Amino acid sequence: MPTADRVSLNVATVRTQWSLPECIAGCARHGIGAIAPWRDKLVECGVDEAARMIADHGLRVSGLCRGGMFPAADAAGRQAALDDNRQAVDQAVAIGAACLVLVVGGLPAGSKDLVDAHRQVEDGIGKTLDYARSVGMPLAIEPLHPMYAADRSCINTLRHALDICDALGDGVGVAVDVYHLWWDPELDRQIARAGAQRLLAFHVCDWLVPTTDLLLDRGMMGDGVIDIPRIRAVVETNGFAGDIEVEIFSANNWWTKDPDHVLATVIERCERVV
Amino acid sequence: MPTADRVSLNVATVRTQWSLPECIAGCARHGIGAIAPWRDKLVECGVDEAARMIADHGLRVSGLCRGGMFPAADAAGRQAALDDNRQAVDQAVAIGAACLVLVVGGLPAGSKDLVDAHRQVEDGIGKTLDYARSVGMPLAIEPLHPMYAADRSCINTLRHALDICDALGDGVGVAVDVYHLWWDPELDRQIARAGAQRLLAFHVCDWLVPTTDLLLDRGMMGDGVIDIPRIRAVVETNGFAGDIEVEIFSANNWWTKDPDHVLATVIERCERVV
Repeated sequence: MPTADRVSLNVATVRTQWSLPECIAGCARHGIGAIAPWRDKLVECGVDEAARMIADHGLRVSGLCRGGMFPAADAAGRQAALDDNRQAVDQAVAIGAACLVLVVGGLPAGSKDLVDAHRQVEDGIGKTLDYARSVGMPLAIEPLHPMYAADRSCINTLRHALDICDALGDGVGVAVDVYHLWWDPELDRQIARAGAQRLLAFHVCDWLVPTTDLLLDRGMMGDGVIDIPRIRAVVETNGFAGDIEVEIFSANNWWTKDPDHVLATVIERCERVV
Repeated sequence: MPTADRVSLNVATVRTQWSLPECIAGCARHGIGAIAPWRDKLVECGVDEAARMIADHGLRVSGLCRGGMFPAADAAGRQAALDDNRQAVDQAVAIGAACLVLVVGGLPAGSKDLVDAHRQVEDGIGKTLDYARSVGMPLAIEPLHPMYAADRSCINTLRHALDICDALGDGVGVAVDVYHLWWDPELDRQIARAGAQRLLAFHVCDWLVPTTDLLLDRGMMGDGVIDIPRIRAVVETNGFAGDIEVEIFSANNWWTKDPDHVLATVIERCERVV
């Protein structure tokens, strides 16, 4: 089971409690080996200052959250998304991230055209990839759970993400999050298809029963129904050797707790049930 | 666009307002051509009485909801599920249903073994199918949205449902519900794979943005983001000629409204946006 030095704290896990500098110091204090910032907290801290602090504390960066959100209702919106993704690539480079995580976006406002959204996503990733390749930053498509297809990501299976990777070539892979993908009967086969080169990130939390909110009711590992060790074994058997990134959106539970207690719990659960 | 005579009222759409006899009379009053009872209301009414009323009012029965819920923690639980499904087949025959809809069940209490749940489901459908074939009642596997994988159905894609149909042979097909399947990039291909023989039911409602509850916040057709006419065209191009069944779970909206208004809205929306 993963010990603290193999764990990455996705800062969303304590996002209501801590700034990015507090997260960095907290990881160092708890012996957590890596961090995954979100861009809002990164900008709040200042990118250069964050890069310096992360280096000073000897943390790895398992990924930057997030680029993506490509589909838009008009050309100006699509261009704004491309500009934003180019900036995200630069920020990921600045902090030495292992990858830029892409949450690709859903249907543009007023649209019911899912096929067009898929096209816009593939086009947007392709254009961002041209730049990301030139600066050596891998892009990680994160398929989100199908319940986010309308408003957050119209890529909802690893199969679909890998179809896009196949079409676009080198420099783009996937982020496997057990919360989004645990239900998929094809999961093992698609992880094997991805292979070590394209398995860029591995995110864990748990699926609670019942789940009371579509976005903000994710569980701590061990509190839900996902067989996390099994899925971890599959990604590791297929060559993933990166950090185990813990990302928990939990408005009514973990976001209300003492963040040092949250980090201690994360470590204890990673050692015991991940 | 479908007129009232091609519409089926799934009684869940007005389940807090009306008994089954009231639903039957309501359909007749509004010119709705078919009905899909749930078993709790069927038993409450009495199966023979319901069958008589449905016949007297000249309604078709697009399906009976529902059999399934096969996985269980022990042999006694599995046998109880099989007994219940045999009774459901008899009830479906008694009311002349076009099919018995199967919501197959999720993880047994305390289990995280999804592969075992899949095995239990296939075994349970197979055993139920032996009996269903002998009385000529088609079984319709309804893949549910992946957000129900843990607690309602571990079959969440049309591909998976059809893999099971392939394994089991004649007498079992699928119920295509746009709410559960609209997000799937493989949907058109899998509907074509199903073909006319296995497209046993077609259910509509809409996916609201935002969705505030995982179970009870489904939308009236036209109020969400699903391109229903497109999906209807795909099932009909592939040979589906049955009723358009409207099934809306809506605790805070449609379940609070005058049921005659709900039925009038269903008909108007089917004519305009389905």
